[in-house]
Amino acid sequence: MIFKTPTQYFLVAGASEGYTLLNAFDGALLHAGIGNTNIVKMSSIVPPHCQRISPIALPPGALVPAAYAALTSDVHGEIISAGVAIALPEDENQNGLIMEYSAKGEQRKIEEIVRNMAVEGMKLRGWKIKDMKSIAIEYKIKKIGAVLAAVVLWG
Amino acid sequence: MIFKTPTQYFLVAGASEGYTLLNAFDGALLHAGIGNTNIVKMSSIVPPHCQRISPIALPPGALVPAAYAALTSDVHGEIISAGVAIALPEDENQNGLIMEYSAKGEQRKIEEIVRNMAVEGMKLRGWKIKDMKSIAIEYKIKKIGAVLAAVVLWG
Amino acid sequence: MIFKTPTQYFLVAGASEGYTLLNAFDGALLHAGIGNTNIVKMSSIVPPHCQRISPIALPPGALVPAAYAALTSDVHGEIISAGVAIALPEDENQNGLIMEYSAKGEQRKIEEIVRNMAVEGMKLRGWKIKDMKSIAIEYKIKKIGAVLAAVVLWG
Repeated sequence: MIFKTPTQYFLVAGASEGYTLLNAFDGALLHAGIGNTNIVKMSSIVPPHCQRISPIALPPGALVPAAYAALTSDVHGEIISAGVAIALPEDENQNGLIMEYSAKGEQRKIEEIVRNMAVEGMKLRGWKIKDMKSIAIEYKIKKIGAVLAAVVLWG
Repeated sequence: MIFKTPTQYFLVAGASEGYTLLNAFDGALLHAGIGNTNIVKMSSIVPPHCQRISPIALPPGALVPAAYAALTSDVHGEIISAGVAIALPEDENQNGLIMEYSAKGEQRKIEEIVRNMAVEGMKLRGWKIKDMKSIAIEYKIKKIGAVLAAVVLWG
Repeated sequence: MIFKTPTQYFLVAGASEGYTLLNAFDGALLHAGIGNTNIVKMSSIVPPHCQRISPIALPPGALVPAAYAALTSDVHGEIISAGVAIALPEDENQNGLIMEYSAKGEQRKIEEIVRNMAVEGMKLRGWKIKDMKSIAIEYKIKKIGAVLAAVVLWG
């Protein structure tokens, strides 16, 4: 195995204005509490026996695998949202599934969609769901803004 | 070195319908046999002395580096394809080169293009090719679908 | 921690024509001296106490985390540029911030923008800047071309 398999995870979300689209994304990462780390994007599994923890202060500059949804916009007044959902299986030797979704629209709707996506993903596997977790955030753009929701792996 | 250098690789491809574009991508990963892992996208080298193996069952939730091409579509009846090609050098102390390509069109054509891309990449390096490997897949969209072809690194 | 935290970094930039957009990107990586490695994209921090080094020859096929800006174009005569900037904090126990930017336009302008982005990112953190580093490159497209600027983490 090239990399160690994570043993812990937590969910975070953030939103921010910014000087540019990338600055807004950086601001959303900061607001989510993970802006001073090196996020490595991955697809989208919670390993078996991986424990949920409360968000922690990660070491600055640490390389951290995460599954995330993010969206930026520079349309004044636009409402954008990002969400992630995790479906955890009844059989604890199987992995959980993370889904990510971002779009124009309100948090409530985006969170509902991303939870449905996780449900459908477990159906495709033929696995029963024991538990669902999700987080989402919405933001109304002033000038340039970003939203982010993430499952951060750690341990 | 931050990460260990991989010592094995294998090629996979998959296609799937899905509830959303991301669900279809998840389905294509599952069909390819890597849907329960955390794929970390990378550019696109087979290390020297890295051995080709048959696709294996990866540990669920493992973090796995891979080079891949993927495409999703929600246009009924559209044919989409994804392919990867590896050009391996005559000098076994040099690395192999992976190229990825996805587009509308048939597998045969996309696989030809991606193989040509790998040939051109080796020309650019001034290296002679000892061997070529490739895999590609096509899929005709019903409602929402995805294709994926990947070189998975392991070891 | 899943991954080790990097202890060294260096800046590179490259540009190239190519047989396809991806071949041009591969050529730009080669021109930058990192074309025979597996680049893993990450967001965008220089860890505290991470030392700047001169660009080194990385082991072929090594997995290497990097923050980068890249752009490809197939518009004859178009000038494209990519740049990265690092803002390093006065307090050496805090991390540095990397920003990436690519666009149509000349190197001088893109480098100015990306440096401003790093300045704004440090303002958002409320941190004073001790030092700035940046690199950028421009390229005039013949047929198909790419530019790339990167901060490569190592150690």
